[in-house]
Amino acid sequence: MRNRQIILESRPRGKVEASNFRMVEAGVPPVKEGEVLTRVRWLSLDPYMRGRMDEGPSYVAPQPLGEVMGGGTVAEVLESRHPALRAGDLVVGMAGWQEYQVAGGGTLRKIDTSVAPASAYLGCLGMPGVTAWYGLGTIGKPKPGETVVVSAAAGAVGSVVGQLAKIAGCRAVGIAGGPAKCEHVVRQLGFDACVDYKAPTFREDLRAATPKRIDVVFENVGGAVLEAALARMNPFGRMAICGLIAGYDGQELALRNPRAILVNRLLVQGFIVSDHQALWPQAVAELAGHVASKRLTWHETVAEGLELAPAAFMGMLKGANLGKQLVRVAG
Amino acid sequence: MRNRQIILESRPRGKVEASNFRMVEAGVPPVKEGEVLTRVRWLSLDPYMRGRMDEGPSYVAPQPLGEVMGGGTVAEVLESRHPALRAGDLVVGMAGWQEYQVAGGGTLRKIDTSVAPASAYLGCLGMPGVTAWYGLGTIGKPKPGETVVVSAAAGAVGSVVGQLAKIAGCRAVGIAGGPAKCEHVVRQLGFDACVDYKAPTFREDLRAATPKRIDVVFENVGGAVLEAALARMNPFGRMAICGLIAGYDGQELALRNPRAILVNRLLVQGFIVSDHQALWPQAVAELAGHVASKRLTWHETVAEGLELAPAAFMGMLKGANLGKQLVRVAG
Repeated sequence: MRNRQIILESRPRGKVEASNFRMVEAGVPPVKEGEVLTRVRWLSLDPYMRGRMDEGPSYVAPQPLGEVMGGGTVAEVLESRHPALRAGDLVVGMAGWQEYQVAGGGTLRKIDTSVAPASAYLGCLGMPGVTAWYGLGTIGKPKPGETVVVSAAAGAVGSVVGQLAKIAGCRAVGIAGGPAKCEHVVRQLGFDACVDYKAPTFREDLRAATPKRIDVVFENVGGAVLEAALARMNPFGRMAICGLIAGYDGQELALRNPRAILVNRLLVQGFIVSDHQALWPQAVAELAGHVASKRLTWHETVAEGLELAPAAFMGMLKGANLGKQLVRVAG
Repeated sequence: MRNRQIILESRPRGKVEASNFRMVEAGVPPVKEGEVLTRVRWLSLDPYMRGRMDEGPSYVAPQPLGEVMGGGTVAEVLESRHPALRAGDLVVGMAGWQEYQVAGGGTLRKIDTSVAPASAYLGCLGMPGVTAWYGLGTIGKPKPGETVVVSAAAGAVGSVVGQLAKIAGCRAVGIAGGPAKCEHVVRQLGFDACVDYKAPTFREDLRAATPKRIDVVFENVGGAVLEAALARMNPFGRMAICGLIAGYDGQELALRNPRAILVNRLLVQGFIVSDHQALWPQAVAELAGHVASKRLTWHETVAEGLELAPAAFMGMLKGANLGKQLVRVAG
């Protein structure tokens, strides 16, 4: 049995390039007591992976050179020597960018596909969904009637943030790149409005879309998008900083108007969902409830085959995806 | 009876100048039922007054042109038509930059000079003390063993912040301008260290003074001082933004490293003490307890006479004062 893997070949200088990755083949080790052999079906591609490709201090350890790219996966158990799992089970884990993995059974979590299809456990019922749930609920604390703005609104996290804001009785305003995404955000996801940050009229459009200004910002992008939102906030507003994708390739990310934090007595807080593992079951249960009641929907962009993972990843960093970016590694 | 007053004659363009103020004389209106006539003894000069001299949106209404400069005062009651006050009482109020005021008795608060001298009610037992108490306790939430850094450490607010940090069992590190202030902060106020932001070695000095990095920042200054502190924070650190005096004359205040907020999951929160009036009695009671137990001390810089208020105010904005800047308006 040959296991195709994609390893980190070199660290990017600025933008990620195809040459930063290399496809290799490896064997599959024997399954020891307590372990299971799984075959990856779905691989999740997420912006945080870009941060791990760099060296230097960050909130997660850098991706080691020459090793399989890390990543969340849904996989099928082929062989189990762990009492809680058996062949045919579908599990969420961190197999990374490869076709097979032997892992300790305790690191895998069985999923229930009667609630939602398997891939959703990498999206609105997975890390992106819990990220949205945590940041909005714990930092944003939206109250009915308030205005919530989220950047990267068509993405896996942002799309959930806006829908949760609607469920909380708020006006949900997205920020996304281009008219097609903005239309998707309003028509399919049910946001009240969506503003195209690439439009020359971005700042005026944001103003028009937030007639009562902004109470909560869920920030995924940074830079000019963050500055525009910060300048439009109401007193006592809250800003959850989840990602600063605008600076992932080393771009300058200066914030030119920090005075707004003082003048409007804002709370600005960065967070990483992995610091809050204990809340995961509660978050997934609530999100699953919203899926069941049809108040939470999602969209996926799927790359077909592991060999397309690097291209799909580079596309995602440029915003080519709509909703959750996945790789279908095996049917 | 002639009442000397200092009015705002013009708004500053950049730095405050003497010509922005004008001394005038006015009469004193009759005392109506429920009012008292007071003679101002002490006038408080505070950085927030600089913000009020500008037009444009901020957290307090601009100081109107042609009117008496606002400001906190300790005054003596000369004549009372209010049941709770009588001649000879000392009261805290907002008489502003003038010698006499007729005010509603309900706007004045009697003070107890057996606890501390009257002027302290404009300093560590007044607005600056409550500001320190609120920002450190409610936003900074220092835990024993943590490192607390405060800028403008020799000032009325900063000096209380560091002493409260010591009482909370923390390492207290000040940032101040020049070796004399730094020495005062360590020797007289009992901080563990103080770093001179004017020194060319400021960043290295801050690093040396914070061997376990920084958990709490109480920010009064902004700009390069804020950036240096932000870059030195531990994960889950808290930054209370109380003032950004470095930008008061319109200087650029860009924050070049907002990514630190995400990477270290920081909480950054602006606050204004006047939003939290309900906590004032609790704050003053606790601060008075620390004064009584000699764990909280203070220093004052006094300008003798109302006519010196503009010069003292301009000096304070340049950092010429040590501790609380006061004007003795009458003996």
